[in-house]
Formats: sequence, structure tokens, C-alpha cells
Amino acid sequence: MSRGDLATRVRAGDRRALARAITCVERGGPAAAALLDAVYGASGQAHTIGVTGPPGAGKSTLVDRLISELRGKQRSVAAIAVDPTSPFSGGALLGDRVRMMRHFADSGVFIRSMATRGHLGGLAPTTREVIHLVDAAGYDAVLVETVGVGQAEVDIASAAMSTIVVLVPGQGDAIQALKAGVMEVADLFVINKADHPGAGRLRAEVEGMLRLSMPERVPPIVQTVAATGAGVAELLAELDAHRAWLNGRERLLELRRRAAAAEVREALGERLARRALAALPDAGEWLERLARRDVAPSAVLAAAEQALFRAGDGESALVDARHPTP
Amino acid sequence: MSRGDLATRVRAGDRRALARAITCVERGGPAAAALLDAVYGASGQAHTIGVTGPPGAGKSTLVDRLISELRGKQRSVAAIAVDPTSPFSGGALLGDRVRMMRHFADSGVFIRSMATRGHLGGLAPTTREVIHLVDAAGYDAVLVETVGVGQAEVDIASAAMSTIVVLVPGQGDAIQALKAGVMEVADLFVINKADHPGAGRLRAEVEGMLRLSMPERVPPIVQTVAATGAGVAELLAELDAHRAWLNGRERLLELRRRAAAAEVREALGERLARRALAALPDAGEWLERLARRDVAPSAVLAAAEQALFRAGDGESALVDARHPTP
Repeated sequence: MSRGDLATRVRAGDRRALARAITCVERGGPAAAALLDAVYGASGQAHTIGVTGPPGAGKSTLVDRLISELRGKQRSVAAIAVDPTSPFSGGALLGDRVRMMRHFADSGVFIRSMATRGHLGGLAPTTREVIHLVDAAGYDAVLVETVGVGQAEVDIASAAMSTIVVLVPGQGDAIQALKAGVMEVADLFVINKADHPGAGRLRAEVEGMLRLSMPERVPPIVQTVAATGAGVAELLAELDAHRAWLNGRERLLELRRRAAAAEVREALGERLARRALAALPDAGEWLERLARRDVAPSAVLAAAEQALFRAGDGESALVDARHPTP
Repeated sequence: MSRGDLATRVRAGDRRALARAITCVERGGPAAAALLDAVYGASGQAHTIGVTGPPGAGKSTLVDRLISELRGKQRSVAAIAVDPTSPFSGGALLGDRVRMMRHFADSGVFIRSMATRGHLGGLAPTTREVIHLVDAAGYDAVLVETVGVGQAEVDIASAAMSTIVVLVPGQGDAIQALKAGVMEVADLFVINKADHPGAGRLRAEVEGMLRLSMPERVPPIVQTVAATGAGVAELLAELDAHRAWLNGRERLLELRRRAAAAEVREALGERLARRALAALPDAGEWLERLARRDVAPSAVLAAAEQALFRAGDGESALVDARHPTP
């Protein structure tokens, strides 16, 4: 199957083609870039929803319930779970997603797990690209689950239209999580396990904090019990309201501009650093000397940059010929 | 005060000079690079210790107790708190560190708070450089506290000699945190609030999991009650043992090699991405077209790379003249 065929089949909503396309994009290289280019124009239609929060908050169960809720309204869903797997083991955390298996027989649901593999930031290196792929495949909603406190929220907020931060009562000091840079990126808060003692107090604390620091726009707080499905219909209603708000105020384009900037900066940094180190003769020797304090850091950076520029012109012409400006 | 004077005074252990040097490095630019170069050779002597774990685990209190314990042994300490502040508000989370104020009058203690400001990864953009500065200033120990689950641990492990992961009983499912890529980067586990019910069970769970997945090297698990100081002497003894183990097996150089590689890759990526976007005429226009899906992602990357290479040669010569290879 040629790349053109694969892209066409992805855009037609073929799930097998989509799975193959994701594998291709995760592998990277020119084939991945060409595929992404070929589907990119069809992306940007799905309601992309980030679901983030600390481990143990019940995010997977909530995503499972949201899938059911969306399917009940005849909407198709793709769910992407991003696991911050160690750079050493490389294994993925699939156990928690076993319950989602029940959706695998449903042709309106697509589920995929991705490992971050030690990538800097809360997303896997190719999460943004995979979101574009499933988006281009025509799913009405794309749920992206990331584990983390801090960076994960900031990253997913720059890639999704609506960001949900899930908190649970009794999990240390939730207010600390809020202080930790999460507040401004959340479009919606979920207090999950709302049947547990302390849920009311947590809600009051979160509300108080939000009113204090962002009085002009207090995001909705929805209480759910993901284990039973309670509150999930209300959560979907709030998500729909948020999307309508985005559309109504032309905020969507601003969000997309910000996502594009983050994506370009990230992809450029990774590509250029890799190319510079590959172009540097004896890169290993330079790093060894740096580790031994025999050379100054800026000398290594300057050497790598020079090597990149020396090697650069030929290669950049190559890149350019491969992906002409449309 | 000239840059040379500032570097000399930092290396002599002058705290005021160190504070100014950190501000200079946080501001970035050529002055920061020159300062870093001038102190770099004196770094690599301190015992750098990362303290990480989820919000509410009591990390700040533990760091405060570790400072007292180290001071009791006449060792000097620098403590750096990295806060994952939002990219929007930019404010730092200083409240939790108020209790550390009692160390401010002690000339053997240096305390500094840094905000990540939306940087990709669990460290602030300049955390690694600041660690080199305080290291070069001659502190015996450098404690670096980062909040987070997942990326923060991986990042700090690549910058510190010993990495402590702090867990507490009753905070959701700690085992989930372990699965989330944390296990292999921890040199030491601390179960804090060990007087709470569930501490014994948590310890057994963590131990079981470690034995299962890394039978050849089960890291020590220390139980502490940071609020009272219980277990902190044992923690310091384990930290000393870890450092001795690193020294004994020549592992330290391998650690430094890895830290140098991570540092160079990160610094190169950020510098080159920034330079490429700055060199791209109408970068805003390109991002706008990308957001509107009027252009393919790879075309923007290719355009930015070409712009960088066109602008590059002159600039790279400049960088080279400024920081000649020693």
C-alpha cells in the first residue's frame, strides 16, 4: 500500500489504515512526515479533549465512561492513552486499560496506547501527530489521557481544545496540585470519586481558589463517580458547552495558532539537536570531555552548531525537495 | 563587577555573588554562557540530590529536615526548589518554603526557588546551569526539589547524582506512580508520613514491586516522618552510602556523561529552534497558515530550517569567536 493510499484510507475512516498510519508516524522519518502532510488538511474538526491529573484519580475509568456516553449519542470516539514510561524499561502501562477492551468490538471507537519513552514533556514525542491522524480519520471526539502533575497538563492544554483536570478527595493536598501551574490550563475540573468523604470540602477549596485567582472566568467543576457513571452525562454537557463557547468566540483559531507554535518549536528543537549531534565529528569524545570538565559547555554547543551549519546546506536542500511548499 | 570577578567570587563561595550569578544565568544570553563556562571546571564536586514525588508528599518538609541533618554534620547545603508554575501566570509557589526561612541566617545554607515557566520537562530551563553554579560555589550537598510524577523524575535523575522518590500512604495508588516510569530512576525511596496508617502496606507493595522488576538492585526504602524528623538521619546515611557506591564503582563518570548528553541535547534544541524561528521571515504568518491548515507541517519545518541555514554561517562564526575551544 503506497503512502498516498494509506492517507486516503485514513481520511476515509478506515481503522486498520489508521492503526498502520500511527505505527508509521511513531517510527518517524520522511515517510511519517509525508503521511502527516497528506492528512493534515483534514484534521482540526474533532473535539480534542485532554484528560489529565495525578495517578490514582480514576482517569482511565472516566475516559471509559465518557466513551460510553459519547457512543450513546451516536458520536464516534478515539481514545489515546499517553503513559510516562521510563526511558529504560520502555514498557507500557496497559493493565489499567483492560476495562476499555469492551469497546474494541465497537467500530465507532478507536483506542491506542502510547509511551513517552523518556521524552521531555508530558506528551509522547509523536502524540501531537497521532492526534492529527485520528482527527483526520473523522472521529467526532478524541480523548487524550495523560498522567501527571505539572508539565503534562501544560503540554496537553497546548494540544487539545478542552482540558479536563481530574482530582479526587483524600489524595494528599489537591490544592497543591492546583498551585502547581494547573489552574490556568484547565477548562473543566472533575472531582471524581465524589461519593467519598471529603468531596464536598475539596470542591469548596477548589472553587475558593479559582474565585480568588481567576474571578473573571471560573471553570466549571463537575462531580463524578466514574465507577458508576454518575455525573458523566453532566461532564459531557459541560464539554459540549465549552466547545460551543470556543466556536462562538473565534477562540478556536487562537487555540490552533498556539498548538501550531508549540508543535513547530518542539519538532524543530528535536530535529535540529539530533542533526547537530549527528553532524559533530567525535560527539562522544566531546561529551566525555564535558563530563570530565575538560571543556566548557558553550564550546560543545558552538562546535555542534558549526557542524550543523557545515553539513546543513546540502541536507536542507534535500528536505526542501522532499516536501515542497504546497 | 566584571563577569570574571563574579565567577571568581562564586568559586570562592560568596553567597551574594552566587545569587547574582543565578539571576544572570536565568536571564540567559552570552553573559550567562560566559559565566557558566568560567565556573564549570569547578563544578562536579558537590553531592547533588534530587528530591521528587507527587504534590502533598511532604518533600519541602523533608528537604528542610535534610538541611538540618547536614548542618549538624558541619556540611554546607544549597537547596533549589523547582516549581512547575504555569506558563500564563508565571508566579512561583513560595508559600510552602516559608519554614525554610529559618535557615536563611545560616551562612552554610543557600536557598533558591525557580519557576519552570512552561518549559518542556520537569526542570526549569536553567536548572542544570544553576546546579553547576551552586556546585562550583563549593556546597557539600545540593538538594533539588521538583514536583511531579513522571517526567520530573526522569529529568532530575539525569541532572543529580542521587535521586530520592518520596511517597506517602493513602495518596491514591502509589503503585501507579511506580509504574509510571519512576521505578528505574529512583536511587532511594522514602515513605514519608510513616506514622500514618497504611505505611507498612505501602512499603510492602513498593518492595514487592521492586523485587519483581529489578531483582538485581532493589533500592533502599527509608521510612520518615518529616514533620518530626524521624528517619532523616537514616536517609542521610543511605544517601552517603549511595554516593560511596557511585565513587567506588566509577559510576560517577558514567552519570556525568549522561548528564552532559542530556544537557547538550536540551540546550541545542532550544537554541536552534529559537534561532530558526527568529530567522524565518514572517514566522507568524507561517504559524497562522498552519493553524488554518493552509500549509503542511513539514513545509514550515523545512522553511524554518532553511532560514536557519541561510542566517547560520555568519552567526555561528560569531559564536565561535566569542567562546573559543579551550
